[in-house]
This record gives sequence, structure tokens and C-alpha cells, in this order.
Amino acid sequence: MLEEASSAPDAVAGQLQRNAALLHELGGRIRALSPRLVLTCARGSSDHAATYGKYLIERFAGVPTASFAPSISSVYARRQSLQGGLFIALSQSGRSPDILSAAQAAADGGALVLAIVNEADSPLAGVADVVVPVHAGPERSVAATKSYIGTLTALVGLVAAWTRDDGLGDALRDVPQRLREAWRLDWSQAVAPLLEAGSLFVVGRGLGLGIAQEAALKFKETCRLHAEAYSAAELRHGPIAIVEAGFPVLVLTQADETRDGVGSVIDELAGLGARVIAAGTEHENAVNLPTLRTVAPPLEPILFVQSFYRMVGALAVARGCDPDNPPHLRKVTETR
Amino acid sequence: MLEEASSAPDAVAGQLQRNAALLHELGGRIRALSPRLVLTCARGSSDHAATYGKYLIERFAGVPTASFAPSISSVYARRQSLQGGLFIALSQSGRSPDILSAAQAAADGGALVLAIVNEADSPLAGVADVVVPVHAGPERSVAATKSYIGTLTALVGLVAAWTRDDGLGDALRDVPQRLREAWRLDWSQAVAPLLEAGSLFVVGRGLGLGIAQEAALKFKETCRLHAEAYSAAELRHGPIAIVEAGFPVLVLTQADETRDGVGSVIDELAGLGARVIAAGTEHENAVNLPTLRTVAPPLEPILFVQSFYRMVGALAVARGCDPDNPPHLRKVTETR
Repeated sequence: MLEEASSAPDAVAGQLQRNAALLHELGGRIRALSPRLVLTCARGSSDHAATYGKYLIERFAGVPTASFAPSISSVYARRQSLQGGLFIALSQSGRSPDILSAAQAAADGGALVLAIVNEADSPLAGVADVVVPVHAGPERSVAATKSYIGTLTALVGLVAAWTRDDGLGDALRDVPQRLREAWRLDWSQAVAPLLEAGSLFVVGRGLGLGIAQEAALKFKETCRLHAEAYSAAELRHGPIAIVEAGFPVLVLTQADETRDGVGSVIDELAGLGARVIAAGTEHENAVNLPTLRTVAPPLEPILFVQSFYRMVGALAVARGCDPDNPPHLRKVTETR
Repeated sequence: MLEEASSAPDAVAGQLQRNAALLHELGGRIRALSPRLVLTCARGSSDHAATYGKYLIERFAGVPTASFAPSISSVYARRQSLQGGLFIALSQSGRSPDILSAAQAAADGGALVLAIVNEADSPLAGVADVVVPVHAGPERSVAATKSYIGTLTALVGLVAAWTRDDGLGDALRDVPQRLREAWRLDWSQAVAPLLEAGSLFVVGRGLGLGIAQEAALKFKETCRLHAEAYSAAELRHGPIAIVEAGFPVLVLTQADETRDGVGSVIDELAGLGARVIAAGTEHENAVNLPTLRTVAPPLEPILFVQSFYRMVGALAVARGCDPDNPPHLRKVTETR
């Protein structure tokens, strides 16, 4: 897992180069379609990338983005009219039957079907109108790392090409080098507070939420630690009830409009005695993890996850787990 | 909390009577609009009701339904074009600033704005084109019960009126009496396995997922127990890694097309030594909770939650918690 994670910067550099022409053309095609609705469809880590995609699309393209529930087509067999919509299937393997069935249903319903997929010759590619390859190379670890980061950058590239947002495009070109720096950041201060933990929350908001979801899943897969992700707002609508003295909370906060709100949640958590570990801010009530300065805020969460992988790998070993072999899981999960 | 939960059947009976004419007219208005997109916007328990609404709308009306992220309008201040869309805000109090701001943004963006709200004279009503009152009466307990059930039945009434699905409408009229029966069902077998638990999963799928989400929140609020909800499919894409011998999993399964898949997940969980507690099925590898027979499957989850409330209230007391006063929470949570 750590070896694969460490190769993410090169994988992303290759992706940017190899997909440039494809995304340029695809951007024009999406502008011509002018979709009033985007649907994403994914499972596991890919679905957390889809959450990041939702916030990117809604914020930069202003188009509402829904998570397509695979069971509606694959189990309930209900057709939906998706004429003029853009459907984005995201999958590392491109093989889960429910994602395939959903993509086929979307194509039948009239949507333009994109597949963001690492194994570009997979069955999903056969269903899609356009394939955006992640180009992360073979990934053997069950816990996705470089394919997850590559899916995030593919989404940024897609939205930058669609909206012709030069700021986003420029920032994306900087990502491989920033990922190398992020990989070297030392997040080991987070290990001690989590060594004996049974449970924790991972908090993000807006563009950080999908990364918080992925971090929570990685804690489960590699450390057998029950981590659950919440938006900083949602946390206050009930879940905060389980926070007590010493309860650990990892907070990921990019330097955008969400930061003040996240800061006030850190204060509230600290007031309850929670052990807050924070990335992306310098907060007096938290253990502060180092992050890079002067990065475009929408891309900061991508760098957080690169630093996080190294820490969670170390935590897994410290907790006596093997991060390369999570229990009960296989690389390709086939659900219907 | 338990007193309020026990009054849900009468509250629903009142709602059906008082909203009949309103929903009849509203159904016609939505058919005339013929929305290609529905957006829901809510927090906490109301957002779990919105999940149920998403599956209802996608399955019965065939219209894709997205969860509107309040931060896009309230924090990022990004406008979206929602012309011809249907926006449904759901809120017990109708007072959270982010929901108000999102509803205003949806109205400005051209959507038809509905508010499903218990406090019908709240600020949210002022923003909405149409208010569908929940009519649950004042709710004082922080942990929502009757207002949650009433929001579910309001959604069923809305979809039945919109789609003119007589089966759904007939089944809805039967709900108050069924809720009375569900309240009397004895789920106390679930208390012992959860008495010492630190963590659990609540599993649902399709129309059961939003109820699993709500049950997980109630475990947190009333029992300080870290419960997390997953769809039966999503569970296998990573989270199952934390399941070990004795790990409790509450599975809610309505008698529809999802049942076989949920059954195979019960087998898989039991094979890992998990302590499976199941409602809605009779499974050899689970502690089976009593449920009512011959209920229309889409409405079964509404009855599960009514039986669940009584059990979780008893569990809270057995764990030394006060279900009426969850820590750190107020009835109206104001997030931005």
C-alpha cells in the first residue's frame, strides 16, 4: 500500500500528460451538452472521490450533482429519464456488476456516460460513451491509494476542461510536485493519540468532505478502527453526542470559505474534551499536522490524503495490523 | 422521547386527514411541472428521511434525486440553475440558517420549493412555494421520533399524490393502525447483545437505507453508542474489515427486491462471527426481531423505526443514559 501510495505523484504526472487532448475535447462536448444534471455512480473509495467531484462540479460548473443509487436500476429495475444529463461512473476495476448495470441504465435513459476508470479495458469501458483513464497503473493493494488520488485529479481535469477555469487548470499542473512534498510531511504526531482508540470521527466540509470519507474508510481497512466521516455542520445535528473526554477527531480543513465554520467546530469539540488532530489550520486547541502553504484551496484536500496515507500505514503497523491485507476484503468487490 | 414516539400513530392519522386536499392539488402541480430533477435539503434526522424520499421518488416517479449540499449556497455562495426542478426542504423546526439559505437559493434558481416542516409557521415556510406540514405537534425531546415518522409519511403521501399510485396511497392509509401494532412489538432481544457494545453497524438497502441511517443516529444520541449505517452493498466495499467475532450488526430488511442481497450479507457477516440482529426476515444466522407480516414493502421501514424507538429507549436506560437529554445537543441546531 505505501509503495503504491508513494508512486501517486508520478502516476498523476503521467495522467495529466496522457489525458490532456482527451479532456480538451471532452470539455467542449460537455459544454455543448450543457447538462442540467450530473449523476455520479460508484462504490467505496471511488464513491468518496465522487463526493469530491460533486462539490467541484456544483461549485465550479453550477450544475446539481446527484449520487446515483445503483439499486434503483440493478435491484428495483426502475428506469429513469436522464435525457441531456451527464452520468459519471467511477471505478478502479470497472467490473462491479451494479455499476455496470447502472451505467447501462443511464445510457438507455439518454445520458452521456463517462467512465473514470483505472483498468481502462474493463467491461465498464464498453458501456461508456467516453472513457477517462486514471492511468495509475496496476494497483494490487486492496486499500486503494494511487488510484484514488488519480481519480480526484481526473475529476479536477474534467471540471477544468469543462468550465475552462484557468486557475483550476494551472493549480492541477502543480499537483505532482506538491504530492511529492506532501508525501514527505510528517504526520506521525497523529499516531500516538490513535494507537489505543476504538472509535473516531473524521471531519471535513465542502471540498474536504470526500477526503474525510476516504480517510475514515482507510482507518477501517488498514487499522480496524471504527472511523466515521461527517461534515462539520452535520456533526452538530446529533452525532456529537458520542464525543467525550479523549475521543479523537481528525479534522481536515482546506483554506477556503468553510474554514471559519470548521474552526468553530474544533473549538466546540475541544470544549468537550475531544482530542482534536487538525490538518490545514493552526489551531490552539488541536494537535496541528504540517501541511503545505500557498496551494490552491480546492486542491488542498488531494494533498491531505497523500500525507494521510503515510501516517495511516504507520498507525496500522503500530496497531499490529497489516495494511496490505485488510481482513475479509478482495480487490474487486462484485455487488449487485 | 418514548412518550412522543408512542404518539406517532395518532400524529400520522391526523396528518393524512389534514393534508389530503393539499397533497391532491400539489400532486397535480408536480405532474404539470414534470420535473427532471428533484433536490432534497436537510440535516440530521430530516436528512435521513430525505434518503427514504430519494428512493421513493426514484423508484415510483423515476426522477433522479440529489441531496443538495447546503454549503454550496450558504458557504461557497455559488448559484445553480434549477429551472424546472423540484426542491424539497425537510426540517423539524424550519429554522436552521443553512437550510433557509439553500431554499432561498433554490427559489432564486427557478425551482419549485416545497417545505416539509413540523413547525409550519417557521421561517422556512416563508421561503417555500408550498408547505407540507408534518402535523406531529410540538416535539420537545432532542431526539426526533414522531416528527421523523411524520416526515416519512408526508413523503409517501407526496409521492402517492404525484404518481397517482393507488397501491402506495392505500398502504399509507393503513399506516396509523400498523404503527400502533409496531409499537407493541417486543424488540427487547436486541438489548442484551448491545448492552456492552462500543460500536456497531446498522445495515439497510434501498428503501430501508434512510431508516438504517436514522437508527444509527438514535444509537449515538440516546445510547452514546457509535453506530454507523451502511447499505448492504457498500458494506462489502471496505467497511466490513472492522467486523470481528461478536461485532454487533443490526440489519433492517423490507420484503422487496433487495431482500436476497441483504440475506447474503447476513450470511457473510455471520461467517465472520458477527452478532447479527435482524428485522424483517427470519434468518437462521441472526437474532430475529418480530415484525408485522403482509405490509406493503415500501412502507415496512416506517414500521421498523417505530418498533426500534421503544427498544433503543430501553437500551439507553440499561446503558445508564438519559434518552431525553442527549449530551451536547439542543433541539434546534443552527448551522451555516
